[in-house]
Amino acid sequence: MAGTDRSRQSDETRIEYQQPVIVLVEPQLGENIGAAARAMLNFGLTEMRIVNPRDGWPNYQALNTSSGAESVLHDATIFDNFDDAIADLTYLVATTARVRDMGKPVETPHGAAARLRAVCARGERCGVLFGRERSGLDNDQVARADSLLIVPTNPGYSSINIAQAVLLMGYEWFQSGDGAADHLTEVTRKGARPASKEELLNFHLHLEEELDACGFLRPPEKRPNMVRNIRNIFSRNNLTDQEVRTLRGIIVGLTKFKRRD
Amino acid sequence: MAGTDRSRQSDETRIEYQQPVIVLVEPQLGENIGAAARAMLNFGLTEMRIVNPRDGWPNYQALNTSSGAESVLHDATIFDNFDDAIADLTYLVATTARVRDMGKPVETPHGAAARLRAVCARGERCGVLFGRERSGLDNDQVARADSLLIVPTNPGYSSINIAQAVLLMGYEWFQSGDGAADHLTEVTRKGARPASKEELLNFHLHLEEELDACGFLRPPEKRPNMVRNIRNIFSRNNLTDQEVRTLRGIIVGLTKFKRRD
Repeated sequence: MAGTDRSRQSDETRIEYQQPVIVLVEPQLGENIGAAARAMLNFGLTEMRIVNPRDGWPNYQALNTSSGAESVLHDATIFDNFDDAIADLTYLVATTARVRDMGKPVETPHGAAARLRAVCARGERCGVLFGRERSGLDNDQVARADSLLIVPTNPGYSSINIAQAVLLMGYEWFQSGDGAADHLTEVTRKGARPASKEELLNFHLHLEEELDACGFLRPPEKRPNMVRNIRNIFSRNNLTDQEVRTLRGIIVGLTKFKRRD
Repeated sequence: MAGTDRSRQSDETRIEYQQPVIVLVEPQLGENIGAAARAMLNFGLTEMRIVNPRDGWPNYQALNTSSGAESVLHDATIFDNFDDAIADLTYLVATTARVRDMGKPVETPHGAAARLRAVCARGERCGVLFGRERSGLDNDQVARADSLLIVPTNPGYSSINIAQAVLLMGYEWFQSGDGAADHLTEVTRKGARPASKEELLNFHLHLEEELDACGFLRPPEKRPNMVRNIRNIFSRNNLTDQEVRTLRGIIVGLTKFKRRD
């Protein structure tokens, strides 16, 4: 029966490991830890590890800043040792502000997200390191990573804070996932459906009849082109049946009732 | 020499217009304005417009939060009127937390960045709207936009703050870089230019005046919604200046001349 247990455990493990761990190394400000937790949860990341938070743990400023994402902080694992925090990971990305002379691959958040997806898909554990607000990761820590993560920014103003870096990494992680765009449901129009070409034509015939009646579509030799231009205006905006009815109501309103002045 | 001057002016115009305007609508917290300025400058965006900042202007908390990006705030333009803030733009994206029932295209930051690149490449002015922290943009404001920007997030925890939304939009703008516009084949409009939001608004005010006169926009309690629906119809089809003139001519034709029958 040991075999059965192991296989079950392995399945559970695989599910648990489907996302990268976010590792904050010696973060200084509680508000940044809280903001990082929010940024993580915004993009479905829930496993935070913190190495030696400067102000101890729990950190109430972090909790205050994390509104709605407290669960990430409650579940965070605190380490007093960098090595322990990354011990079980097989693939590690180090966030850094500049390319370091370490012969490591340099990745953008976009590229790193794709790589992390691939590692997770193999059932391996991976993580992304974020350093101290003031000084970032030290060289020994960076040396432990498989690749460097650099956010492409304006060279003249490149400083982004730790929670923003987590946000961008989370954003790209989420984007890289299956059907991240799926819940961007296409243009919805509740209770309405796209107008049929027939409905659209009837609207145009109605409009053109009134425009003929008021003399707008003259001289006759210009009429075909004018009609085409007007039809073109309304062919471009995906009118719904309701909107076509509104437009027809407008024509009736403007023509059938006298202005009061 | 007039020809030379014009060509020079046109070149300068093109350079000046090469990036979208970031429009903050009634922002409440100075720290968010400051953080938005930082996020903009991180990705090379420098033109901020602010409509009715809750705490007035200048805002010292915004300046304190913007460390290094004060220039963006110093150059920001303050408006007491939403219409004026978008008057010169031809393409407008409205950031919103959810799909609204307006039949507008929905874009991710990635898609919106590509679109904005294409618009800028044509030398047109474009912008991205960000609403109040608490309540976002109102429906009338969203109705003025050409498309909706939605950041794909964890459906269970989707709230991101205004500065984070600016950060993600800026990030994608920067990523979309040179030549991104090349991928997008665009509708060409020979001899015409896109209508500005001001021209579009004037058309709507004209139409609404006539619809008021004929009693179409009644009862009064339904008027705001009717107006919004009608504005929404015409915000979706990239009208040219010529087409706006045609539509205004149609209104005049339909109202000023009696039907013959």
